[in-house]
Amino acid sequence: MNKILRVNMSDLTCSFEDVPQKYRYLGGRGLTSAITCDEVPPTCHPLGPNNKVIVATGVVTGTAAPTSGRISIGGKSPLTGTIKETNSGGMAGQKLARLGITIVVEGQPREKGKFWLLKVDKDGAELLPAADKWLAKGLYETYPLLFAEFGEKVGIIGIGVAGERLMANAGICVNDPENRPSRYAGRGGMGAVMGSKGLKAIVIDDEGAPGVPIVNKEVFDTGRKKLVEALRTHDVTKPGGALNTYGTAVLINIMNEAGGLPTRNFSSGRFEGAAKISGEAIHEACKTRGGVGKTGHGCSPGCIIQCSNVYPKPDGTELVSVQEYESVWAFGADCGIDDLDVTGELIYLCNDYGVDTIEAGVTIGVAMEAGLAGFGDGKKAIELMHEISKGTPLGHILGNGAAATAKVFGVVRCPTVKGQAIPAYEPRAVKGIGVTYATSNMGADHTSGYTIAPEILAVGGKADPFAVEKAELSRNFQSATAVIDSSGYCLFIAFAILDIAEGFEGMVETVNGVQGTSWTMDDVTRIGQEIIRKERQFNQAAGFTPAHDRLPEFMKYESLPPHNTTFDVSEEILDQVYAF
Amino acid sequence: MNKILRVNMSDLTCSFEDVPQKYRYLGGRGLTSAITCDEVPPTCHPLGPNNKVIVATGVVTGTAAPTSGRISIGGKSPLTGTIKETNSGGMAGQKLARLGITIVVEGQPREKGKFWLLKVDKDGAELLPAADKWLAKGLYETYPLLFAEFGEKVGIIGIGVAGERLMANAGICVNDPENRPSRYAGRGGMGAVMGSKGLKAIVIDDEGAPGVPIVNKEVFDTGRKKLVEALRTHDVTKPGGALNTYGTAVLINIMNEAGGLPTRNFSSGRFEGAAKISGEAIHEACKTRGGVGKTGHGCSPGCIIQCSNVYPKPDGTELVSVQEYESVWAFGADCGIDDLDVTGELIYLCNDYGVDTIEAGVTIGVAMEAGLAGFGDGKKAIELMHEISKGTPLGHILGNGAAATAKVFGVVRCPTVKGQAIPAYEPRAVKGIGVTYATSNMGADHTSGYTIAPEILAVGGKADPFAVEKAELSRNFQSATAVIDSSGYCLFIAFAILDIAEGFEGMVETVNGVQGTSWTMDDVTRIGQEIIRKERQFNQAAGFTPAHDRLPEFMKYESLPPHNTTFDVSEEILDQVYAF
Repeated sequence: MNKILRVNMSDLTCSFEDVPQKYRYLGGRGLTSAITCDEVPPTCHPLGPNNKVIVATGVVTGTAAPTSGRISIGGKSPLTGTIKETNSGGMAGQKLARLGITIVVEGQPREKGKFWLLKVDKDGAELLPAADKWLAKGLYETYPLLFAEFGEKVGIIGIGVAGERLMANAGICVNDPENRPSRYAGRGGMGAVMGSKGLKAIVIDDEGAPGVPIVNKEVFDTGRKKLVEALRTHDVTKPGGALNTYGTAVLINIMNEAGGLPTRNFSSGRFEGAAKISGEAIHEACKTRGGVGKTGHGCSPGCIIQCSNVYPKPDGTELVSVQEYESVWAFGADCGIDDLDVTGELIYLCNDYGVDTIEAGVTIGVAMEAGLAGFGDGKKAIELMHEISKGTPLGHILGNGAAATAKVFGVVRCPTVKGQAIPAYEPRAVKGIGVTYATSNMGADHTSGYTIAPEILAVGGKADPFAVEKAELSRNFQSATAVIDSSGYCLFIAFAILDIAEGFEGMVETVNGVQGTSWTMDDVTRIGQEIIRKERQFNQAAGFTPAHDRLPEFMKYESLPPHNTTFDVSEEILDQVYAF
Repeated sequence: MNKILRVNMSDLTCSFEDVPQKYRYLGGRGLTSAITCDEVPPTCHPLGPNNKVIVATGVVTGTAAPTSGRISIGGKSPLTGTIKETNSGGMAGQKLARLGITIVVEGQPREKGKFWLLKVDKDGAELLPAADKWLAKGLYETYPLLFAEFGEKVGIIGIGVAGERLMANAGICVNDPENRPSRYAGRGGMGAVMGSKGLKAIVIDDEGAPGVPIVNKEVFDTGRKKLVEALRTHDVTKPGGALNTYGTAVLINIMNEAGGLPTRNFSSGRFEGAAKISGEAIHEACKTRGGVGKTGHGCSPGCIIQCSNVYPKPDGTELVSVQEYESVWAFGADCGIDDLDVTGELIYLCNDYGVDTIEAGVTIGVAMEAGLAGFGDGKKAIELMHEISKGTPLGHILGNGAAATAKVFGVVRCPTVKGQAIPAYEPRAVKGIGVTYATSNMGADHTSGYTIAPEILAVGGKADPFAVEKAELSRNFQSATAVIDSSGYCLFIAFAILDIAEGFEGMVETVNGVQGTSWTMDDVTRIGQEIIRKERQFNQAAGFTPAHDRLPEFMKYESLPPHNTTFDVSEEILDQVYAF
């Protein structure tokens, strides 16, 4: 990347700076975390003037590297109070990468409730007052207005009403290839931070952009070919493979079978309605309902996995894109809802209002536990989601996520770590992922160290899900992930490169090709650990200790059916994860 | 004290145990904190089965020592997540002390929403199912029913609807000498912990109680006389002195004059309506309105300060007891309300619903900042308080205190430390009290180290309120306070004993007389520091670090009128407080 664009929301100025040498070989999460550590006071209020929103693309994003369109957004999270990096597919990453820009949004307008839009193109950047018609409404209404204004070919990074209202579960939305507001850097509430800066959207026009310089084209091409080959070969990622055919929701039946599909606010690991919300059921509905329905949809150009989908209504018109595993699980099993039309509607509302589906679904589950709706009551769940848009007190509670909802209603069975909802894999049934949830720098996050691969999927080796000695496993996954999150690659390349050494090699070579470095596969571990260590220092300075690297207490004393196990990984093991 | 009464709410049993030797010389806070540290897992969920409610009376409580009727309630706080001790006057302390009982409530009933009542008398203890008519209503209705059932002479420790609903600002109520539900162990939400145990009330009947054994009667009597003399002599505490005549609200004008009366959610240190809500105005209303109005009311038998009051309506009937400085400030200046009839009504609602006045008032101030009411709008403030009783989502938000309210509505100017509302002294205008707020083990709490004495009142020496070198001052006040909170004495004896050495001596002698110890005044510091160190270890194990010993960030960058000062005490100074 060539320039850092500083957007000062206090005086409404934009300025470009050279990228300091120390950031030269950083992209994505590596870069957002580095800038956060260097510039954001760890104890600052996440919604105050001293937090920042950092937008950085991955090292290979914008090149021909496959499945590499990720964009990272970082800063201090209002949901967790930790450092945060959240990344997304969609159309923005490659465009921003081709412009060679990393964005740092800082300061805060004096006037509250006023919003601006940042326009970035090859000629520079400017802040425009946000038009009233873009505000306080659903993104399915706002995004088309923005595309009408700025052209259909721009990338948009924006926030919905949840972000405008500073709700801690507000995500940041990126348009998909058909310009839906459907791809999210969702987790950790960075949309609220953007909202607190008075920034409604970033519009990226890459027409005439210089593109991503590649220092060593030959190395890059060699690597790219190896990686493409691995992705095209591996059962999980290949065309017609599991992800491409059924989408990520192929995991519903698998996790249910394993007794690790959290059900009804984490009171069981098995859901009797699982089959009805499975990837297979999604595939079937797309086939039988016809119309726009499809699996094998790509979320950003150049992806060869294509695990997304467009889910049709019974009449074949579009209900929503995308019914993702985590989203379907959150609103499905975790809320006791066994109807894809209902989960689809709820996911649509998340996209529309600008909230993370995982956090939102777990929040509804907690609200159900609090008695605000019965488990399985899809109609009431939809009503609850509408509260977020209405901005009622209840909407503010729910928009602030599961931990806030549990706190406000006195719910003890609160499935969060560091304030962030635990995703779709039960740590009492799959211990390694529990180690990741507990120790991740970002709060509970499956993507920060996806030990499900060896524990459940027999990818990257095989590990007994009930075994507790998982410190090393989680650590290795966490550090490898930090590198992938920095590279710009989608995390899903991991399935292939964990099993196919040449693929891993190819991944590293593409990075080397772009940067002119000569990193080896060993460097990946070192670099990953450096990123994590830096993030961890931020958290420590913000007041986090090993006492926060724990799962919620109820998982220690409540046995989870069907295996009737508790989370029995010792604190000593948890504390070993960061012993590097 | 002779026995520990264990009340197990899981199996609904009561059992008595001997007091272990290690607790022999502990009372009040010293004892509740010791038991909390020994028995409560620091990382447990405050509303889960592993937290406990510990009720302990002070060392001299129940004797003829003056102004010593305090009762301490401890455990882990759902408001702050820290260890918590909160104490109250009223009728329960001396009765429980005369029975020689310390109560430990533990476990949790399986059935949620069911409540019991604990009856304690000279013959033992039993749990009775709480009658429906005692539940889900105001305590001004419930308490008379309880007295009708158990006799007018019992002491009652109970919770209101806020505690039943597990709201983190639920206090624990103790009847006053006229059996009003008006004295509160209010801070830190221990009422929610009691609610989570399914315990609605503890009824204490001390008829035929053995009384408090005094090992060395002569030493005790000598000490008592010295202390009585000091209290009767000092300008602040003497009959007809400042507290006795005007009540604690005598501080309104004083703090306003000092520019340290937090106004409109801590946006100014001076309130133009201060005189109208001052102690002088209370005194005047009691005089001119006649009827039941009086200042110089005592909150528990044997108090010779008598700083409480009964505030009359215009027609002379009772509005509320008591219009305390902190309460009047919280609903008055901090909400921009300059009408004692409104603050009185709001305080009445706090008593009725069972919430802490400081936290509730600061919460309304935050809600006003969030736009839920205009500053100064008393009518709307009263409506907001009613939400707590109604149990609406908004009521749940407000009932969870200022930090939860700020979080839910995205308010950055959130005047809390460790989740507990900052009381009525502005740390930007009085730096030492800011040091106490920041570093106290209990969250923001003026009573944990009342440096206002030397900084504003010229009691116990004189200190420049704007000087920042206050680590030692705060430390000394905090350790002395820990001892007073353990003795059973009201903290207000401090005014006299800080200035009159003989009074201090007398205080120590009464403790020695009861216990048969020979503690010197030097021991007070040592013992106080031991208590604080132990509490701090609990907090550390719960995940608290020096990063939490900080005031809210906005106080560092927002200047406070009229002095236009920020809180500029360095982190180094804050971290020196516990360097012992």
